[in-house]
Formats: sequence, C-alpha cells, structure tokens
Amino acid sequence: MTSILVVGSVAYDTVETPFGRAERVLGGSASFFSLAASFFVPVNLVAVVGTDFAQEHVDRLAAHNIDMEGLQRADGLSFFWEGRYSFDLNARETVRTDLNVFQSFRPRIPEKYRHSSHVFLGNIDPVLQQEVLDQVERPRLVALDTMNFWIEGRLDELKKALRRVDVLLINDAEARQLSGEWNIVKAARAIRALGPRTLVLKKGEHGVLMFGEDGSFSAPAYPLEQVFDPTGAGDTFAGGFLGYLASVQAQAGAADRGYDDEALRRAVVMGSTLASFCVEAFSLDRLLALTRAEIDERFRLFKRLTQFESI
Amino acid sequence: MTSILVVGSVAYDTVETPFGRAERVLGGSASFFSLAASFFVPVNLVAVVGTDFAQEHVDRLAAHNIDMEGLQRADGLSFFWEGRYSFDLNARETVRTDLNVFQSFRPRIPEKYRHSSHVFLGNIDPVLQQEVLDQVERPRLVALDTMNFWIEGRLDELKKALRRVDVLLINDAEARQLSGEWNIVKAARAIRALGPRTLVLKKGEHGVLMFGEDGSFSAPAYPLEQVFDPTGAGDTFAGGFLGYLASVQAQAGAADRGYDDEALRRAVVMGSTLASFCVEAFSLDRLLALTRAEIDERFRLFKRLTQFESI
Repeated sequence: MTSILVVGSVAYDTVETPFGRAERVLGGSASFFSLAASFFVPVNLVAVVGTDFAQEHVDRLAAHNIDMEGLQRADGLSFFWEGRYSFDLNARETVRTDLNVFQSFRPRIPEKYRHSSHVFLGNIDPVLQQEVLDQVERPRLVALDTMNFWIEGRLDELKKALRRVDVLLINDAEARQLSGEWNIVKAARAIRALGPRTLVLKKGEHGVLMFGEDGSFSAPAYPLEQVFDPTGAGDTFAGGFLGYLASVQAQAGAADRGYDDEALRRAVVMGSTLASFCVEAFSLDRLLALTRAEIDERFRLFKRLTQFESI
Repeated sequence: MTSILVVGSVAYDTVETPFGRAERVLGGSASFFSLAASFFVPVNLVAVVGTDFAQEHVDRLAAHNIDMEGLQRADGLSFFWEGRYSFDLNARETVRTDLNVFQSFRPRIPEKYRHSSHVFLGNIDPVLQQEVLDQVERPRLVALDTMNFWIEGRLDELKKALRRVDVLLINDAEARQLSGEWNIVKAARAIRALGPRTLVLKKGEHGVLMFGEDGSFSAPAYPLEQVFDPTGAGDTFAGGFLGYLASVQAQAGAADRGYDDEALRRAVVMGSTLASFCVEAFSLDRLLALTRAEIDERFRLFKRLTQFESI
C-alpha cells in the first residue's frame, strides 16, 4: 500500500526572527516532512522524543494522517534547537543544539511500517540510514537528506547509503562539498554517479534545481511579501515533493510509470508550494491550518510565475 | 523606425578567471548590450573612447548591425577596467578602474538617432541619463540600468530619471538599497512607485525576477557546465531583453500591443539566453560567433528547463 516511512527528528525549537520569538515550539525534520507529505498519502513516522514531550503534540500529528506508533520514548529530554535569523533569512545562527535523547537514537521500524512504498531518510548518521533500509522490504523509492557534518565525518558510510538511494535532496553548498566540484552541473554529474538517479538541489530563496535522467529542471521559490520563519522549509519541501510523487505513483499502479520526468517536475513544484506556506508562520502553525484548496491555488500561481510562450 | 539607442561605456578590460587571463580585450556595457540587441533590431550606439581605441574594434561592432556614428573620440585613454574572479564566479574583485575619457563623457545624440524607438540608458551618472532623454523624441520605451554608486551619491537625480523610465534593470542588492526594503516583493513595489512600470531584478547565477503590472515572473539562469567569464552578462541580458522586446513591438505596430506581459516574459528568457552564451568565453568572443539558430535552440532548452504540467 502506498505510504511513506520517514525517519528523522522530532524536536522542540526556540526561534527568533526579526518578526518575533517562539519558545519551545514543535519542530524537527520528521515533523515538518510528515505534515507536508500527509496532504498526499499516509505517513509512518519513526523518531525519538524524551519524557518532556507533550502528548498534545503527538495527538496533533496523529490527527493529520501520520501514524505515530514508531515514535520512540526515551529517558531524558527531547532534541532541542535554538536559532536566530537576521533580516537575511537565508543565514541563520544556531544559538544552541541539545541532541539529548536523539544522540543515542537507533531507529526501530515497526512491523507494520516495513512495507511502506516510499522511504525518506532524514538528516541522521548514514550508518543509521542504512540500518533503516536493512529493516524495510524493497520500497518503491528511497530519498535521502544529509548535511555537511556527515559529508565531513562519515563520507564512506554516506557513500554506501547513497548507492541504495533513488533521490538525494541537499543544498548547493553540500553538493559542492560532496562532489569536490564547484560548478553545479559537474557536481550533479559526480553525485549521480554515486547512486541517486535524481539529485534535488535546494537553494533556499533561490529555489530548486533538479538533475535527473531526462535533463534538468529549475523552479523558483515563491516570492513572498512576508517570510516569517524559514525553519523547516527544506524538510517541508521534501515532504511535499515525496508525498506528491508517492500519490502519483499510487495512481500509476505497479507499472512504475509514476517515476517519470513530468511527475518529478510537478513534485518539485509541489515541494516548493508546501515550503512557501511553511515559512509564513512559526513552527508547523501554517501547515496545520492549510487546506488542499490553498495548495492547489498556489501551485497554479507557481505555474503563472514561471510560464512563457515559445518564440 | 524600430531601433535601440544605447548610451554607456565602451572599454578595454583585463580579466582573470580560474580558467585564464585576457589582456585589454573589448568590453564596456554598451558593447555587450549592443551586440546582444543587434540580433533583433538595429542599434545606435553612443559612447566615448580615447585615442588608443583600435579601429578594428569599431569595425567589429559596425559589422553587426550597430551604427557607430555616435562613438565619440576624446583625447586621452579609453575606459579601462581590470577584474579578477575566484571559483565563486558571482563575486568579483576589481583590481583597477581607470575612467580616463569616460570621466568627462557628455553624451551627444546624433540627429539621426533622435527618433530611436527604444532607449537603453546604461549605468552612467543619472544627470547624464536625463540629458540623453532630453535629446530624444518620445521613444516608445525607455529602460535604465544603475548601480550602488549612483544610489548612494545621486539619489535625487536618479529618482528624477526613474520618473521618465518604463523598465528598470538592477540586481537584487541594488533593489534593496534603492528601496530601503529587505523583502524583495516589498522592494519591488516601492521601486515601481518611483516610476518604472516594470522592474527586472538580475540575480546572476540565480536568474531573474520581473515585477510588472500583471504580476511577477521568474526565470532561472541556464545551468552551464563551464562558466568561463561572467563579465558583461548583465549588459548582455539587457541587450537580449530590450532587443527582443523591440522586435516584438515592431511587429505589433503602433497600437503598442507589444508591451504586454507575455512579450515581457519571453524578453526575460531571451535576455537570459543571450547572457548564457556571453559567459562561455572572454570578452565578446562568444557573442561575435553566435547564430540566430543557436539562440533559438537555447531558448527552447530554457522552456524545457522550466516547464511543468498542471495538476
């Protein structure tokens, strides 16, 4: 059955932007990803939280088509991140990172999750990402996120993980670091040779560039008048991207016709659409209030934003 | 008759990139602009050079549908610029700028240029930009380029010039500086209130964002495997943009239907197309060897790069 298994962090964030401050609000890569993806297909979440984690927050995610059986509880405090943004919302300063129970996280995939059709490996140790893949039964598509920390400290393990991945989602700086190539086209070719047939480069306010078997695709970020808090935009993008793609593949059936270039292009725009809502408020607030009609309308605006006639 | 009057610099550049070095090659905003625009309509050039300027370079531009009667000769040396690029080709270091005869440039518009249908005011003192407009007869469309130097030092004169302008082409940092707004959507609204009905924001490798009467339009830069030398890309963009727009308006006739949102969108992509060729070699070398068939083919690739289906 079509569903997405996501493994990542569920956390509390304290965020300060030029527009306000939010204390200990719900965050973490798996939270943003799951909520975005849940607009399209059921989501199976695997993460760990501490004894401080409020049942209210579990319930809030569970109410949105997200199965929470995989949420592990451990003695200690939940992952906590504190960050601050200046007016240049592309640059953020990390004030504090307390890994807490996340430090000894070992993902255990519940039996009923093991046949998930799609897997999203959030930004965790590549060793753990491989352990997740060892526990699941031939998913239709695997996507992976990572960061400079793992590229620097766990490159060999990361490369092993990448051989088992269909889609890699990283930012442009990470792509340069991973490939050792400054030019982004050369970087993409080098990275795709490591395994992923599709590379999705996230460039924040400058949008997304995708490299795949059928060439490249570029989508802008939606030009918003008010970017309130960029926290979680990348994970929300990934959720919209993979959620939409999974829903298309579900309709296409087992013939795998869903994994085509056209579906991937629309998935990038759908990811960008979800991300454009995420940044309009703190935490998951805007995503929790979002409707499918609003999503479809902004997708339509994205098309208008980028469309031009042939000459 | 449809033609574009361009007023700007014709210069010699010495450029060093990670891929090589070029000594005293033909450069300047008016050179790049003219050559790009000349693929679409005749160009009337006004600039100043010194006694060191080679006749060969005059002839080279003249051979490309560019009227050189407006090229003034002055005692002294031509404008000289020396710059260096690191691997991050978005950032450049100016090693030396010798304004030379450009310092006392006063644009004189030849009689036969005064009925040019389109005017491009290159990046010069806004006082001179106004003097150019005083010498021409009601052009159909006026576009203007400027920079931080004039925004800081000649803001009042720049605002006077902007009241007489249809299209302003600047980069995103300049838009923030001119408007005092960090958010780019707010910046665009503030700038359009100063006069220009269309604002074209150049973002280098991140493409172009246009704000007009019918909403906004986003186009990426073409992802190239080899960016050899970015010098002149912005002026080449402007030349392709305005040249294409002028050619559309010529076809549309006096009813002014050419200045519509669809034509502006294609003009942005055409500007991006020309700019993508410019950066493939030093100086004007690639543009001098370019064919209309190559232009049309890359325009088609731009469409493929950005196209996606509705959901």
